[in-house]
Amino acid sequence: MTPFDDAIALVAQAEGHFRGRTHPGYANMVGPYGGITAAQALNAVLRHPALQGEPVALTVNYCAALADGDFEAEARPVRTNRSTQHWMVEVRQQGETAVSATVFTALRRPTWAADEHRMPAVPAPAQVALPTMRSPVEWLKRYEMRLIEGPMPAAWDGGEHHDSRTLLWMRDAPPRPLDHASLAALADVFFPRIWRRRAKPVPVGTVSMTVYFHADAARLRAAGSGYVLGQAQAQGFFGGYFDQTAQLWSEGGELLATTHQVVYFKE
Amino acid sequence: MTPFDDAIALVAQAEGHFRGRTHPGYANMVGPYGGITAAQALNAVLRHPALQGEPVALTVNYCAALADGDFEAEARPVRTNRSTQHWMVEVRQQGETAVSATVFTALRRPTWAADEHRMPAVPAPAQVALPTMRSPVEWLKRYEMRLIEGPMPAAWDGGEHHDSRTLLWMRDAPPRPLDHASLAALADVFFPRIWRRRAKPVPVGTVSMTVYFHADAARLRAAGSGYVLGQAQAQGFFGGYFDQTAQLWSEGGELLATTHQVVYFKE
Repeated sequence: MTPFDDAIALVAQAEGHFRGRTHPGYANMVGPYGGITAAQALNAVLRHPALQGEPVALTVNYCAALADGDFEAEARPVRTNRSTQHWMVEVRQQGETAVSATVFTALRRPTWAADEHRMPAVPAPAQVALPTMRSPVEWLKRYEMRLIEGPMPAAWDGGEHHDSRTLLWMRDAPPRPLDHASLAALADVFFPRIWRRRAKPVPVGTVSMTVYFHADAARLRAAGSGYVLGQAQAQGFFGGYFDQTAQLWSEGGELLATTHQVVYFKE
Repeated sequence: MTPFDDAIALVAQAEGHFRGRTHPGYANMVGPYGGITAAQALNAVLRHPALQGEPVALTVNYCAALADGDFEAEARPVRTNRSTQHWMVEVRQQGETAVSATVFTALRRPTWAADEHRMPAVPAPAQVALPTMRSPVEWLKRYEMRLIEGPMPAAWDGGEHHDSRTLLWMRDAPPRPLDHASLAALADVFFPRIWRRRAKPVPVGTVSMTVYFHADAARLRAAGSGYVLGQAQAQGFFGGYFDQTAQLWSEGGELLATTHQVVYFKE
């Protein structure tokens, strides 16, 4: 069992209720890595006995910092149609909601398909160096990241950059076949865009993240445990919040997911 | 009272519960325009006596077609922090959930700000022609739209376009000062990207839409009842679903909102 599988493991209680716990391997500076929290919330739906279909859309709201330790996750199918299902999820600690989420699942059908947002031209993963610095936080060690463009600023000198774009190859460490849960976790990998844009390490925290999956189990199986190319960029910074739009492609160039988040910042 | 204000009006019942109704002026081909439904769901939070702050993020899930007539909207603050609040909303008809939503509100603080996604160079609204065709559905008459680029295909000839981008000036008809509710409704204005991309009128339906606001009441007040520039483009089409990413700028060029949605399509 990989650290990722261990981290998202849930123990079923009454129907739709699960017990989980934060995982020390995915610890962030304060509380757990947001990506693993998203995967845990999604997993409560994936493990639900009434589940129909595969995830198409996921929105996770980070309502409060999760404390290290146990949590309860409740997944509720609010509407089940012929081939689609809408879910609400709440993750609670001490009876208080720490995370809310909505998930949309569907039985996929083969249709005309196209990746309109094409993968940019980039060097192959093996040609991109691994980081030389030791990671300051635990969760970063659970991912292999090969940065192509838009690194963390070398100096916190407040020298404003023109754009906040980052492009990197990434995969679970140790490598693990991609699935919807691990892809949801990968969607949150990017360091805060404002750090790149302003070269200033201001306090930040994601408040909401949405992931749209453009892949079913077969497309993910084809991507295997290969690298995922991630591209992230901010669109707007205003009144204490900025957004991030990002795309994730398989090593073969297939668009697997698009994702967006809104992030609190303080200065 | 404008048609928009009339359409989103809610009558308070027990705390957090409201009664509303679909509005014939915003009728779509089947059921109401999704943008007005988003504004109604958001309005249940805006009208809640416990509301703190202004909307920053909104996700609306269209769980089932709303029937014409009355609905009940319930807004529940799932977590209230010092300056932020997380909400869950459900819109029900006959006791069944037709719409679920999550809303994040916050007391905004002035901070460093920047619009990283800049408004493209476009002609002024007065220089862009109004449509000459009569609108086939009622809700389209509630918006003035001046299309700059990426029209609905002139012929449904299946002649595939290279991209699905559309750029237009738009505002409420009759004009009405912008606020968060009307901006949420404007986020859904764009016709389905797959119609543009494939020149084929396949059946479609939005299943989830997220709006991130980059504007507080003051920024919206400054935009007044001016035009909003909207830009929308798909990123991926796969297995019966495609996504759309869009930006909304004020006439003066300020980024007011970014928005994304995932849409079912059949073929």
